[in-house]
Amino acid sequence: MIYKLFEALDKKFAVQRASAHCDVPCGIYDPITAQIAALTVVRMVDLMHGLEAEGVAYQNSMSRYVLVKEEHAEKAKHEIRVIWGDYIKAQHVEQFPELHELTHKIMQFGSKSRQTADREAAVAFVENINKFADIFWATKGIATKRAKAPYAPALEMVYPNL
Amino acid sequence: MIYKLFEALDKKFAVQRASAHCDVPCGIYDPITAQIAALTVVRMVDLMHGLEAEGVAYQNSMSRYVLVKEEHAEKAKHEIRVIWGDYIKAQHVEQFPELHELTHKIMQFGSKSRQTADREAAVAFVENINKFADIFWATKGIATKRAKAPYAPALEMVYPNL
Amino acid sequence: MIYKLFEALDKKFAVQRASAHCDVPCGIYDPITAQIAALTVVRMVDLMHGLEAEGVAYQNSMSRYVLVKEEHAEKAKHEIRVIWGDYIKAQHVEQFPELHELTHKIMQFGSKSRQTADREAAVAFVENINKFADIFWATKGIATKRAKAPYAPALEMVYPNL
Amino acid sequence: MIYKLFEALDKKFAVQRASAHCDVPCGIYDPITAQIAALTVVRMVDLMHGLEAEGVAYQNSMSRYVLVKEEHAEKAKHEIRVIWGDYIKAQHVEQFPELHELTHKIMQFGSKSRQTADREAAVAFVENINKFADIFWATKGIATKRAKAPYAPALEMVYPNL
Amino acid sequence: MIYKLFEALDKKFAVQRASAHCDVPCGIYDPITAQIAALTVVRMVDLMHGLEAEGVAYQNSMSRYVLVKEEHAEKAKHEIRVIWGDYIKAQHVEQFPELHELTHKIMQFGSKSRQTADREAAVAFVENINKFADIFWATKGIATKRAKAPYAPALEMVYPNL
Amino acid sequence: MIYKLFEALDKKFAVQRASAHCDVPCGIYDPITAQIAALTVVRMVDLMHGLEAEGVAYQNSMSRYVLVKEEHAEKAKHEIRVIWGDYIKAQHVEQFPELHELTHKIMQFGSKSRQTADREAAVAFVENINKFADIFWATKGIATKRAKAPYAPALEMVYPNL
Repeated sequence: MIYKLFEALDKKFAVQRASAHCDVPCGIYDPITAQIAALTVVRMVDLMHGLEAEGVAYQNSMSRYVLVKEEHAEKAKHEIRVIWGDYIKAQHVEQFPELHELTHKIMQFGSKSRQTADREAAVAFVENINKFADIFWATKGIATKRAKAPYAPALEMVYPNL
Repeated sequence: MIYKLFEALDKKFAVQRASAHCDVPCGIYDPITAQIAALTVVRMVDLMHGLEAEGVAYQNSMSRYVLVKEEHAEKAKHEIRVIWGDYIKAQHVEQFPELHELTHKIMQFGSKSRQTADREAAVAFVENINKFADIFWATKGIATKRAKAPYAPALEMVYPNL
Repeated sequence: MIYKLFEALDKKFAVQRASAHCDVPCGIYDPITAQIAALTVVRMVDLMHGLEAEGVAYQNSMSRYVLVKEEHAEKAKHEIRVIWGDYIKAQHVEQFPELHELTHKIMQFGSKSRQTADREAAVAFVENINKFADIFWATKGIATKRAKAPYAPALEMVYPNL
Repeated sequence: MIYKLFEALDKKFAVQRASAHCDVPCGIYDPITAQIAALTVVRMVDLMHGLEAEGVAYQNSMSRYVLVKEEHAEKAKHEIRVIWGDYIKAQHVEQFPELHELTHKIMQFGSKSRQTADREAAVAFVENINKFADIFWATKGIATKRAKAPYAPALEMVYPNL
Repeated sequence: MIYKLFEALDKKFAVQRASAHCDVPCGIYDPITAQIAALTVVRMVDLMHGLEAEGVAYQNSMSRYVLVKEEHAEKAKHEIRVIWGDYIKAQHVEQFPELHELTHKIMQFGSKSRQTADREAAVAFVENINKFADIFWATKGIATKRAKAPYAPALEMVYPNL
Repeated sequence: MIYKLFEALDKKFAVQRASAHCDVPCGIYDPITAQIAALTVVRMVDLMHGLEAEGVAYQNSMSRYVLVKEEHAEKAKHEIRVIWGDYIKAQHVEQFPELHELTHKIMQFGSKSRQTADREAAVAFVENINKFADIFWATKGIATKRAKAPYAPALEMVYPNL
């Protein structure tokens, strides 16, 4: 019986959702926050592999890099979840059927980037978020470009053409 | 060129992911945290509609209910994202192809439950998380049962048979 | 004089508290959150002692285990404080006079579990929280059972019989 | 059997705890943080009752006062829990047998101060924390004095004589 | 005597600071996060003044707008403090002597934007952060442009020319 | 044009700010929180240099010291920013023209204390915050004294004469 109620609820909201353009508080979604956070993950990986200190200084820096990597990987995952879960609607998924899979992949590269200091995983994390940004701006009818980030590691980032 | 590198990375990790059973820190995933949080959302909705105080006392209680509702809706969404993003692997999605869609729906009912004091949306939030819990325990080969939660609102919850 | 005022206040609220069944927002207290968090502490201790990586990979994993251990020990302490401080009333303490001492002991095993990677301390942390869960469910008239947790480390946990 | 193990663990740590003077990271415990937070709760209650704005301005201020009250009541409870749970040892409880009961009472006045805009409850919250501060400094052999706080509401506060 | 030690320390670090290009973890500072957060503050002010719901729905939305406004005003202030306190060095202040005053003004418009629902204050908050962004990119030798934000309220934002 | 609007806004608020004594929620600012946090940073540095454990125990303690150091350095910086940004007004800066520079210096010693385990930097962090406290209490017309902190490291602290 509870399932029936549920099916009914689903139908009711499906209609509402189809007609809604965005949630309130509507609309200041921007993937740049996730992109910067993911780039920071790559930066921390680079710092970890390049660290030359010893003893207490080594421990101090290494623990901090891991901590910052951890926080920014989580931040990037969180930001993407918010856009995917709050902004992306059924009609967007119809238009870009890869959206669920791509979001799931971002989560997994985020996990990998926390569990390891593997630079390739961190770069793939950035790049999948770039792909997500491309789609996001496309749903808003805004063209994008690629440019190097103005800070190390100067990976290519997707930016809206404003 | 960066896309090629990326495709290569994807292939590399796809293999790794297929063979990995769980991320490290492995394995203490439990949907009960999300279920309790979603139930709290329903509770807050009930308290909001039943509030009979006036003036400062009304404002104090109402603001707090909204705040608690907000926090627990977010908490439930976060917990589901963690299980979906960190624990769920490609082989699980093959077995339960509705997983991406269900997770996305949970996010949307979570949004709805924050934006409104609509009891039906909050109940649907709980119920979709119950469905997620069912699948989660199935991936672990653990049977589930349904029982009323031992606190108001005593909605049916999915529990593992331990 | 301020003390007199205070005594007066105490009397006033003592009466109110005796008649109150629960705080608003009433009632969705559940020790399972603390139990899972404490179990996670044991898991991290096991991972720390079993870690076989070297260099950067070692530092990355070790720092993360310590961090997760830290967070979950704190989370378990916090959750127990909330139940003890918000739900437990004078009449419960009359019925279970060990409650204050038990809660204090949980805090201390929590501290010990943060300060060390001592598995016995972490197990005692879990077990004292199990005892607390037993009492909690007894105050609600709900029987409990013991069963192995469905994830490593599969320690015995106290669950309500629902 | 698990209980036996547990009893054994308890004995082992009881000895260690008796000889330990403080946890590491040892010793920068100071109740002033909790005292200031509780005073802030009283301040918010005063502002709530004195608010004269209307419409959006009223809602903006009232929601903020409730939010700040909520956060500082929680902060005060948290800080007291930390001192009680991490610093207070069995020998302190022998010397000041009211410590558990007092801490529990602080938690309850903290709850009351969140649930209501009752000034007497908030003042009792401050005053019980003052009592706790008195005992805390006594365990360190440091005398205390009472003086009015140098900010509104200028309630009497317990300070160490430094 | 402690002052003398302090003067000596100051001199020592003054030299170090003059030669340091950036703190480690170096360099991924970007004012866009603060800019987006401040824009969100303006958006919330607009939503607050345009809210047409009643009763529980009114309270639910209004409390949430205030909460989001509060969080994003704080976030913007925090982000600017980080860039000002961690990235900006003595040589930047020599080059842009208004930096301290501008940062202080941003903090004050942030406070004003939290205390009120005054749109002019919120717009001034955004605009001062735009000024800060202009200076920030100038210290890096990167030209900027002005363009409308791609989301409501479509205020002009300062962006780097990448 | 947007600049003109901005100038107009500035003028408007400049007048308001000059006449305002403090922001609402007014007035419970106290630098003691920042002072205690900075002292904790020194304590962590001392513990880091004195750590004698090995292996897992070493990693556990070291990671925790770094983490606590990180959190308290940030906390001290945050608290000073709040007082400087919310309480300090133009008239205070006229009276104490070193305020901006001093606050900036505190931020930099905070960064240094996070990046290194340099005791001199941490002590300078404490001492600059002491200077800030001196000025803060002077703006309130409250005399201060210097006394050793009642916990290790027993550095001299600035306290108000209450």
